[in-house]
Amino acid sequence: MDSTTNAPVTVVGLGLMGRALAGAFLKAGHPTTVWNRTTSKSDQLVAEGARRAPTVGDALRASSLTIICVTDYQAMHELLGASDVELDGTMVINLTSGDSAQARAAARWAEQRGARYLDGAIMAIPSAIGTAEAVILHSGPQPDFDAYKSTLDALGTVTYLGADHGLASLYDVAGLAMMWSVLNAWLQGTAMLRTAGVDAATYAPFARQIAAGVAEWLPGYAEQIDSGSFPAEVSALETDVRAMAHLIEESEAVGVNAELPKLIKAMADRSIAAGHGGEQYPVLIEEFSKPRDS
Amino acid sequence: MDSTTNAPVTVVGLGLMGRALAGAFLKAGHPTTVWNRTTSKSDQLVAEGARRAPTVGDALRASSLTIICVTDYQAMHELLGASDVELDGTMVINLTSGDSAQARAAARWAEQRGARYLDGAIMAIPSAIGTAEAVILHSGPQPDFDAYKSTLDALGTVTYLGADHGLASLYDVAGLAMMWSVLNAWLQGTAMLRTAGVDAATYAPFARQIAAGVAEWLPGYAEQIDSGSFPAEVSALETDVRAMAHLIEESEAVGVNAELPKLIKAMADRSIAAGHGGEQYPVLIEEFSKPRDS
Ligand SMILES: NC(=O)c1ccc[n+]([C@@H]2O[C@H](COP(=O)([O-])OP(=O)(O)OC[C@H]3O[C@@H](n4cnc5c(N)ncnc54)[C@H](OP(=O)(O)O)[C@@H]3O)[C@@H](O)[C@H]2O)c1
Ligand SMILES: NC(=O)c1ccc[n+]([C@@H]2O[C@H](COP(=O)([O-])OP(=O)(O)OC[C@H]3O[C@@H](n4cnc5c(N)ncnc54)[C@H](OP(=O)(O)O)[C@@H]3O)[C@@H](O)[C@H]2O)c1
Repeated sequence: MDSTTNAPVTVVGLGLMGRALAGAFLKAGHPTTVWNRTTSKSDQLVAEGARRAPTVGDALRASSLTIICVTDYQAMHELLGASDVELDGTMVINLTSGDSAQARAAARWAEQRGARYLDGAIMAIPSAIGTAEAVILHSGPQPDFDAYKSTLDALGTVTYLGADHGLASLYDVAGLAMMWSVLNAWLQGTAMLRTAGVDAATYAPFARQIAAGVAEWLPGYAEQIDSGSFPAEVSALETDVRAMAHLIEESEAVGVNAELPKLIKAMADRSIAAGHGGEQYPVLIEEFSKPRDS
Repeated sequence: MDSTTNAPVTVVGLGLMGRALAGAFLKAGHPTTVWNRTTSKSDQLVAEGARRAPTVGDALRASSLTIICVTDYQAMHELLGASDVELDGTMVINLTSGDSAQARAAARWAEQRGARYLDGAIMAIPSAIGTAEAVILHSGPQPDFDAYKSTLDALGTVTYLGADHGLASLYDVAGLAMMWSVLNAWLQGTAMLRTAGVDAATYAPFARQIAAGVAEWLPGYAEQIDSGSFPAEVSALETDVRAMAHLIEESEAVGVNAELPKLIKAMADRSIAAGHGGEQYPVLIEEFSKPRDS
């Protein structure tokens, strides 16, 4: 191992996720300093070779890179705002969940105190940390990401999104919206098929195939959005809503929940009312881009 | 070509879809008889080698297999109920869109008149017919499907779902629900990212990766549904709703539509209220399986 892969790192916050992060750094051979408000949560890590810092300030001084992962941004501000903490010259990567505005504000706050700051979002559960399955998103100055990428690689699949500190949070929740939407559509279909005696295992491969197939269309559909032109090459919204009405009727006829079908149709109906019935599905970006009552 | 691939076939209904179906049979070398209420719509097919039947009754007598594809089930009943139509001994495959109850009723109706009947659903646009991309679902007696599968193969990727005539319609709308849900989640994320200056083309590959990744979980999650047991192996619903609240807050903060995020959380909130907060996401099948107010 060269000196880069052995770069020292500090982890502040040893909840379920923080412990997984520190454990992955240790396993990859990084000298790892840890701190947690409740001291006992560092015991196991210390047994595995971590160094326990007596204060947050000591923890930050121990390594040029500090990862912080606590409940929320308020806890992060309390910790890094403590009187013995010297942020000047340190590199802070905040993997605490929050929204894009909190991330941007935290970046300004840390930078005003002389720190370099990257915001991150963890799209993984603690047990996946340290494997390629764990996707960890980063945003902020690219030189800082590049400088620490080889250290961060210990955590999983580490991705850089752009200079705007809010991007990690935005991609994170957008990705979660996709996750829940695929699951909900699958549950909707499963509920409908079960009324005909089809079990979930029989239906799942069909749902998987549709979801994976439609995923392939997205880059092409994105071109329509970026060009602001939505010719009905495949099908017009007007044709789609007739099938949406079928989906609602079928859901109601077999006695399952119809809220998701109704929301699907309501968005399309509004776009048609706005004059887009002859255009293609991605024209709905106009409805998704504004609050309901504007 | 052997006699099976050259089996004669009749197509009744020559709208956009019916013409594509008849064209694919002709191209595959099947002697093809056609009929449409508006006669002129068969001109091009006749030029390509189709035989035009003077009446629906003649059309059905011309081949042992008749495909019907008209606007709706009512039009199908009007046509096949005409006085010169003799259904006894014929094989009818109805590719008209409708719901599962209409399909089951049409099957009973046709079978009472001595016909064999399969119900189908076309998950494709007319221009895809004749290519592997065109998925065509069938349900009804398996021997009938097996007997005509080699003829149907001319139309695309031909699938058999089960004996219940309602299955093709159910899978069709379930698949559409998945399609619109993936598109809507992508639009939600695209709308959010665009507020940070990220264009649709930049975000689309990320959305594609999440959708395709989550699709892979479905068969495993289906096992939880079929066993009726939902241990929180990956994450508990209670943890998920905190992230759902983030999604709503972020959507509202950046000023995009929040209806889809709110529906996602509302379903999960109800499941938690019903005592399932410590269980895993697929437990939501209980909410999806019942109407809103039951
Ligand atoms: N767990 C996951 O699956 C997962 C996945 C993706 C993202 N995340 C995110 O990762 C972050 C941490 O999650 P987690 O699962 O590790 O949570 P957790 O197990 O509840 O741990 C919370 C951590 O924050 C610390 N903390 C909270 N308030 C504090 C304060 N005022 N001062 C000092 N320390 C404070 C806690 O210290 P004490 O030990 O002293 O209470 C603990 O170390 C969250 O933002 C979460 O959304 C988690
Ligand atoms: N087009 C697609 O992308 C697509 C995709 C999947 C499924 N489908 C389904 O395929 C079916 C046909 O769609 P299409 O696109 O071909 O529609 P279309 O172009 O509007 O054609 C409708 C056909 O139905 C006939 N018809 C309607 N009412 C009739 C009646 N009372 N008596 C006799 N004939 C009648 C029309 O005859 P005339 O020509 O005399 O009017 C025409 O042949 C529909 O159920 C549709 O949902 C279509």
